[in-house]
Amino acid sequence: MERVSFVNGKFLPHSQCFVHIEDRGFQLADGVYEVILLKNNKLIDIDWHLQRLFRSLAELEIKFEQNKTYLEQIILELFAKNNLTDGSVYLQITRGATNRQQIFPTNISPTITATVSPLKIINQQDLENGLSVQTHQDIRWQRCDIKSTSLLASCWIRQKAVSAGDDDTILIRDGFVTEATFANVFIVDKNGTLITRNADNFILQGITRNRLIELAKNNGIAVLEKKFTVEELLQAREVFLSSTTLLVRPVSKVDRQIIGNGKAGEISKKLSGLYNNFIH
Amino acid sequence: MERVSFVNGKFLPHSQCFVHIEDRGFQLADGVYEVILLKNNKLIDIDWHLQRLFRSLAELEIKFEQNKTYLEQIILELFAKNNLTDGSVYLQITRGATNRQQIFPTNISPTITATVSPLKIINQQDLENGLSVQTHQDIRWQRCDIKSTSLLASCWIRQKAVSAGDDDTILIRDGFVTEATFANVFIVDKNGTLITRNADNFILQGITRNRLIELAKNNGIAVLEKKFTVEELLQAREVFLSSTTLLVRPVSKVDRQIIGNGKAGEISKKLSGLYNNFIH
Repeated sequence: MERVSFVNGKFLPHSQCFVHIEDRGFQLADGVYEVILLKNNKLIDIDWHLQRLFRSLAELEIKFEQNKTYLEQIILELFAKNNLTDGSVYLQITRGATNRQQIFPTNISPTITATVSPLKIINQQDLENGLSVQTHQDIRWQRCDIKSTSLLASCWIRQKAVSAGDDDTILIRDGFVTEATFANVFIVDKNGTLITRNADNFILQGITRNRLIELAKNNGIAVLEKKFTVEELLQAREVFLSSTTLLVRPVSKVDRQIIGNGKAGEISKKLSGLYNNFIH
Repeated sequence: MERVSFVNGKFLPHSQCFVHIEDRGFQLADGVYEVILLKNNKLIDIDWHLQRLFRSLAELEIKFEQNKTYLEQIILELFAKNNLTDGSVYLQITRGATNRQQIFPTNISPTITATVSPLKIINQQDLENGLSVQTHQDIRWQRCDIKSTSLLASCWIRQKAVSAGDDDTILIRDGFVTEATFANVFIVDKNGTLITRNADNFILQGITRNRLIELAKNNGIAVLEKKFTVEELLQAREVFLSSTTLLVRPVSKVDRQIIGNGKAGEISKKLSGLYNNFIH
């Protein structure tokens, strides 16, 4: 059965879902998005996701008339139509379609699209082995706090890593770690303190990141939200990435240097377990 | 009569031109474009435009099988179908449509779209009065030499200027002028030397820019391609922007400070005349 997707009020066979060639999402990357997890038919941290989505829309002055309940209903209906009780939804809202112009047009209706996918199950051994990542200068724009579709830089940098045989890239701006191409970065220092960059304009404030910080604090793990350097990254006892689809993903190599004992670390595994319990 | 546009091999009524919701141009800004002028049925500097387009495609590793002749034929046919002998074409090529993924997929066919518009005639008095621009930190990504559709930052910054009552923004990185949001920046210093930033990764190497440099050199105007500061900008005798659609567009105010005598300068007007002669 062909999967069903959503476009502007309609649930349609995926192959029949189109937007106009002058959609500002297509011509100018003028849109925002969220990826949200469904687990046992329950949307994980949906309130935080939709809150962030509305913040992104507001930052870009995209006038969006629908409310959170409307979006939540679309998402749940889309999962149901695809017979999924576990999966992820990709929800995108652009400013809409009109004659191409640089400034923000008025009298335009936002375009809403959504697709769902089953969850990818990560092999336990791959999790234990950890990712091999490289570092790269963070050349993206300086409003990464807005979850926009202006993602070419992230794709391009990630592709460079994969072409070189690595899994991903950790980005460095002015000597400090920002994030990975599509995930936040956590380290555990020699005192066992969990450190992740404070949420400034250079990183996306990840929903999984925020949840992990809360879970850590509630379970006796010291947490610091602060900028940290490449040196701190390389000397960390543990490194992991977090995102809605990666969950907690240990990193065992950075620029071919082994992190800790070269396997998923204790705190990473503890947090991975806590997060899995949380979503179940 | 409804205008005709082009999408993936077909000339269709504009309102019927669509791309798939999983086109990477729509979801990830994974595409490139050109805007080319038609004057008296002749495409201006088409070779340079297509050369730059193929460079952008190569930088992004977008495998594009068609050649320049194919694109030129599409463009000319599109103008003919719209009964235009003067106008501009917007040509966009994206990596194509497939299940959303961060890395570059293989086995994917690029999406080609094109639209044409009549030329906007700029009132002579507006040209003489010049634009009022503001300066803003250049927060875009650091590969602006690739003419990609990852344009949200440029739109967002330009909108800020327009909302504040200005016409555009000149961008500043590390104290040096890069370009305007969708145009190159030229200044004329107190010795009458024409200065524009050298083509590095922080600016697009404009086709109109390149043509103006050549016309200036051939007509006894000294030209320097070098980085220049905000101070040099503010103290310039003349400032103007250049692009395919703006042509030569004098600037009379920067951050509310008057440039020169507050009107279009002599060298700006001379170059504007030379460029108009060139395209006629």
